[in-house]
Amino acid sequence: MLNVIKSRAAIAWAAGEALKIEEIDVMPPKAGEVRVRILASGVCHTDAFTLSGDDPEGIFPCVLGHEGGGVVESIGEGVTSVAVGDHVIPLYTPECGECKFCTSGKTNLCQKIRETQGRGLMPDGTTRFFKDGEPIFHYMGCSTFSEYTVLPEISLAKVNQAAPLEEVCLLGCGVTTGMGAVMNTAKVQEGDTVAIFGIGGIGLAAIIGATMAKASRIIAIDINESKFELAKKLGATDCINPKHFDKPIQEVVVDMTEGGVDFSFECIGNVDVMRSALECCHKGWGESVIIGVAGAGQEISTRPFQLVTGRVWRGTAFGGVKGRSELPEIVERYMAGDFALNDFISYTMGLDKINDAFDLMHQGKSIRSVIHFDK
Amino acid sequence: MLNVIKSRAAIAWAAGEALKIEEIDVMPPKAGEVRVRILASGVCHTDAFTLSGDDPEGIFPCVLGHEGGGVVESIGEGVTSVAVGDHVIPLYTPECGECKFCTSGKTNLCQKIRETQGRGLMPDGTTRFFKDGEPIFHYMGCSTFSEYTVLPEISLAKVNQAAPLEEVCLLGCGVTTGMGAVMNTAKVQEGDTVAIFGIGGIGLAAIIGATMAKASRIIAIDINESKFELAKKLGATDCINPKHFDKPIQEVVVDMTEGGVDFSFECIGNVDVMRSALECCHKGWGESVIIGVAGAGQEISTRPFQLVTGRVWRGTAFGGVKGRSELPEIVERYMAGDFALNDFISYTMGLDKINDAFDLMHQGKSIRSVIHFDK
Repeated sequence: MLNVIKSRAAIAWAAGEALKIEEIDVMPPKAGEVRVRILASGVCHTDAFTLSGDDPEGIFPCVLGHEGGGVVESIGEGVTSVAVGDHVIPLYTPECGECKFCTSGKTNLCQKIRETQGRGLMPDGTTRFFKDGEPIFHYMGCSTFSEYTVLPEISLAKVNQAAPLEEVCLLGCGVTTGMGAVMNTAKVQEGDTVAIFGIGGIGLAAIIGATMAKASRIIAIDINESKFELAKKLGATDCINPKHFDKPIQEVVVDMTEGGVDFSFECIGNVDVMRSALECCHKGWGESVIIGVAGAGQEISTRPFQLVTGRVWRGTAFGGVKGRSELPEIVERYMAGDFALNDFISYTMGLDKINDAFDLMHQGKSIRSVIHFDK
Repeated sequence: MLNVIKSRAAIAWAAGEALKIEEIDVMPPKAGEVRVRILASGVCHTDAFTLSGDDPEGIFPCVLGHEGGGVVESIGEGVTSVAVGDHVIPLYTPECGECKFCTSGKTNLCQKIRETQGRGLMPDGTTRFFKDGEPIFHYMGCSTFSEYTVLPEISLAKVNQAAPLEEVCLLGCGVTTGMGAVMNTAKVQEGDTVAIFGIGGIGLAAIIGATMAKASRIIAIDINESKFELAKKLGATDCINPKHFDKPIQEVVVDMTEGGVDFSFECIGNVDVMRSALECCHKGWGESVIIGVAGAGQEISTRPFQLVTGRVWRGTAFGGVKGRSELPEIVERYMAGDFALNDFISYTMGLDKINDAFDLMHQGKSIRSVIHFDK
């Protein structure tokens, strides 16, 4: 019989408040569930978005965090795809392999547990986290800001045990999202031209993806020029600041590329930038991919002529990557040296300093801070 | 030495005025040009749009018409791909085979002569039409409302001489646009579900395309139920009128199809309908294709979440069909009995009755009226 585990966790008690480090009770995994000891977790803008209260789906109190790496501590009844001791990356987009979406072969958006996950619950409609007997909600099906967490089996990618979890945890969200958008969603080919709007973690990962795809031109666009050096190191051929031009940035990009880019990526979540990203694409075939998440109720607009003349507008979530079947391969590519992750890690710190990680992010001083649970 | 030909033509002297049937002088074709005797021409909404004055690119006086069929009367220097007596369909989207767009293999939007065509001129910057010595402008590079017209060689598809020009002229615009959007742009596959918004000529052609592609469900949507019978005859499985529902039509379609359609097509030019068409697509993979042309300055909008969750928004012009290399094959499919055109032809009339054709169209009484020049 599995027991309840006492776990240090950063609890988000209410929107807009700092996280509090407290000890919670983590229940044993039920059938089809897995309890994971988290070793490291990135702190992502989406955590901050939910904590701010702007996320209409935010539910409190909860344990945030969705970019983690850990080791299987115990498994519930019927779990077969992972065993105790396996190294895993939690997936906020699961892969059941059975639902209409998984079997379509056309999308990574498994819907098997979407409804309960959206309500901060495990698939049976309850939580595995308690504080003084009161339930604490899960977050994005992951809740990696806790030493121990419980996830459905379908929400775990089993990865190479030799991979450093404190680095590959970043593949649980931002890095895979950016790289996957370029390689899986857009399918950029050798020689293609690319524009990347916003060079935070996702934009930098998109640059890596474009470099790996051998794009001939990688134009990085940001108003914060302090990021340009790293963007160039990762493969950007041009770095431009929209504030230095007196015409719309889409016109600048069109002029730079003799008609526009083959692919553009919006990595911010700003609906005006999404429009610029579409309109800097080449007539006839240019495709723009929305990666950033816009605020509630905001809308994108353009003249339909932009589409009728051959541009395509699409989006992506988790880079179109199917977590259980494809993420392990990305970890292998990392292990093979195809790309590096250390450039993304601005700071590492213990769980007790997690509010500092949010502050550094808000101040634009970090790409990612990674929480090390053993620090 | 080729001579000037006297030709009966319908002249649009000014925006908003009825066309006037007059005799004009049609100059001989210059190098790379072809003079064509038009035998039949459909009257399309785009002709009416330009005549109304709402088309910002409209230039007067001009000879309208862009959906024609004819016979080569004479050829200019260097013309090799057509000979006197060949049957041809004029192309408002040419295919030079040499420009960046043609050689990309990714689009049918040849840009070789776009600039002069947009100004109502032949590629050398002059017109071939004169009335009492004053130049009359060309229209969409075609001007099929004249017994004789002159076109660039790259703007002519040579078709099977056995094909009845008074029917296949409709392949010069509307029918090819609708069928091509389904088969070339969306690439609808057997078993896919489809929603078609607006069942005028283009929408009906899209229904034919979806039927030929063996779509499993073809939902036709229009507020004019008088078209439903023909839509069903052509293959629509469901015909629905948005006015009969008290919720948005996209929700109706989503409910009818267990989550949305695989493909939708907007065949009207209404930006609100374009949004409905996108939002009735299935999460994860549904694609919406804009075919209709919206009024100047109008914009489409949606929440970016629609795209981030896997829907794709694209557009099409002339159904993505490359006129010279692909239109002849479509004529062959017509000759083989793969589809019929007579359902599209509501009326036929001589050139002298052309203003009646516009009236019938404005009154919603015709799908197409076809002008027979020998009537």
